[in-house]
Amino acid sequence: MRLAVIYGPRDVRFEESEAPKIIQPTDAIIKISATCVCGSDLWPYRGLSPVKEPTPFGHEYCGIVEEVGNAVTSISPGQFVIGSFFASDNTCPHCQAGYQSSCQRRELINRAQAPKLRVPLADGTLVATPGVPTDDLIPSLLTFSDVMGTGWFAADAAKVSPGKTVAVVGDGAVGLLGVLSAKVMGAGRIIAMSRHEPRQKLAREFGATDIVTERGEEGVARIKELTNGIGADAVLECVGTQESMLQAIRSTRPGGSVGYVGVPHGVALDGQELFFAHVHLHGGPAPVRRYMPHLIDLVWHGKINPGKVFDLTLPLEQVAEGYRAMDERRAIKALLRP
Amino acid sequence: MRLAVIYGPRDVRFEESEAPKIIQPTDAIIKISATCVCGSDLWPYRGLSPVKEPTPFGHEYCGIVEEVGNAVTSISPGQFVIGSFFASDNTCPHCQAGYQSSCQRRELINRAQAPKLRVPLADGTLVATPGVPTDDLIPSLLTFSDVMGTGWFAADAAKVSPGKTVAVVGDGAVGLLGVLSAKVMGAGRIIAMSRHEPRQKLAREFGATDIVTERGEEGVARIKELTNGIGADAVLECVGTQESMLQAIRSTRPGGSVGYVGVPHGVALDGQELFFAHVHLHGGPAPVRRYMPHLIDLVWHGKINPGKVFDLTLPLEQVAEGYRAMDERRAIKALLRP
Repeated sequence: MRLAVIYGPRDVRFEESEAPKIIQPTDAIIKISATCVCGSDLWPYRGLSPVKEPTPFGHEYCGIVEEVGNAVTSISPGQFVIGSFFASDNTCPHCQAGYQSSCQRRELINRAQAPKLRVPLADGTLVATPGVPTDDLIPSLLTFSDVMGTGWFAADAAKVSPGKTVAVVGDGAVGLLGVLSAKVMGAGRIIAMSRHEPRQKLAREFGATDIVTERGEEGVARIKELTNGIGADAVLECVGTQESMLQAIRSTRPGGSVGYVGVPHGVALDGQELFFAHVHLHGGPAPVRRYMPHLIDLVWHGKINPGKVFDLTLPLEQVAEGYRAMDERRAIKALLRP
Repeated sequence: MRLAVIYGPRDVRFEESEAPKIIQPTDAIIKISATCVCGSDLWPYRGLSPVKEPTPFGHEYCGIVEEVGNAVTSISPGQFVIGSFFASDNTCPHCQAGYQSSCQRRELINRAQAPKLRVPLADGTLVATPGVPTDDLIPSLLTFSDVMGTGWFAADAAKVSPGKTVAVVGDGAVGLLGVLSAKVMGAGRIIAMSRHEPRQKLAREFGATDIVTERGEEGVARIKELTNGIGADAVLECVGTQESMLQAIRSTRPGGSVGYVGVPHGVALDGQELFFAHVHLHGGPAPVRRYMPHLIDLVWHGKINPGKVFDLTLPLEQVAEGYRAMDERRAIKALLRP
């Protein structure tokens, strides 16, 4: 079997590796139906996070269960399943509180850009769909592994509710699916911050009512202008830079909420600014496991189509081209089919 | 008339000044029944915030309305009133959202260590009690001007609710009243972090079930130990230093909440640590105006006695001794009577 391995900046190879096997009795092996490249994969790809040694990559996956360990009780071979980017037992106190991505036994998945994958803590991590889906549903179901669940968490953390004015910082797949999440949650107005025409178009399709092309202080000023000087009720931060984080905080009304899901790179928040901003701040690695049953239900019944974020589909062996296309912003998100 | 003026580190004088007069038609003049020294007054007193020029001081007050401007409609002479440390109109969008301390027209009160005070935006700022209170209620009512309202906001921002495990960082008046607030809100367990015996005693009286004397990383470890390695559901940060803020964040369970009300001095939060901590963060200058009607009701009916934080009462002209006693931690909080 071959899988994607990152060697360093702009050096992703699809190379031979042993096929995964059951190691723990709580493991499952799945045959992957679809996987993809994540915006967060671009940090090391661009040399912005260090790559110390050749590292297998990929943490978004869905597919058919092939084999399960002795201790697995709720998942069985033949089922179609989706799993989170963090394996979790779904029983520890943090899981029970809905924060599966802080599970006391969590393990980061990182070999999913492959035809097969070992998933630890299978009972806790994997969620089966009501049946084997038709092929057209697979891209949407795959988004629950990370991006749609992450956009949904951003909207949830920002307390989006019916009628609210929402702003979304970041027009990557997560930001766009944050727009869709806000729409599903009933937001009255959704301001997408984007300067890329194809992404603006998809944002509008997902429910954005306004597009703001300005960034930084000018972006903040534009949001204030659009909200009678008040600021947005809820702001979704889906980038992870100092600029985007400050843009989110400063665009929020006092008493409003920032949901932040962009993995912070070089972000430091000044205590006094945050204090006087008077905002609610919540975020972190999205507990996508919490949202999966509800989101599966929405896709299964044709209510949402988050799979639209995939504007490039490639055979898995062309994974390196998937990274390149996203790095060069030729694609929003690349779907890979083994 | 004489009032308190700070000239520089450890230099507070009680000196002659003109009596206040109505300036705006929305002003009121009140004859102060009691005022006090705030923990935040100690920052400039200790030289930790700059004092550029002699500055009148004091922002906690209650008393009898003496005169009102033409435009004041809801407050009238003879009433006993309490006001917030920030004057607010209580009608702007931020006030309507419950964030009066971010009012679009807010003005900081800073001449309250005096026998008389001009209060701007009187209709929005002042809340009248059901009648003129007996003398024994005045200390408790005074606390709504800042410290009790601030402790209550910390508990509210930290989402304290029945049965929750709460930790309080800081054993000043605000921290102690945070303990009392958590108790009133039904917390199941309240861990007060304090190494001062008289404050521990008052914390217990207010409802603390556990006392932790360790600080910093050791304090965090102790909280984890007391909560089966999970962390507290809600943590109230009532100091404002880098150490106390990190102690609060690190003591909170993933998905739990930090309510922070200590004015930050030299606090910078690392984005990545905050991200993976998975906590909710909310705080800022407390919108004490929001809580006043409810808190007045609790004191009026003898349900709470927050006035116990005043362990030193002085005539107003000895205001400098009030600062000294608090600076030297001989007193938790000094009440001043004109």
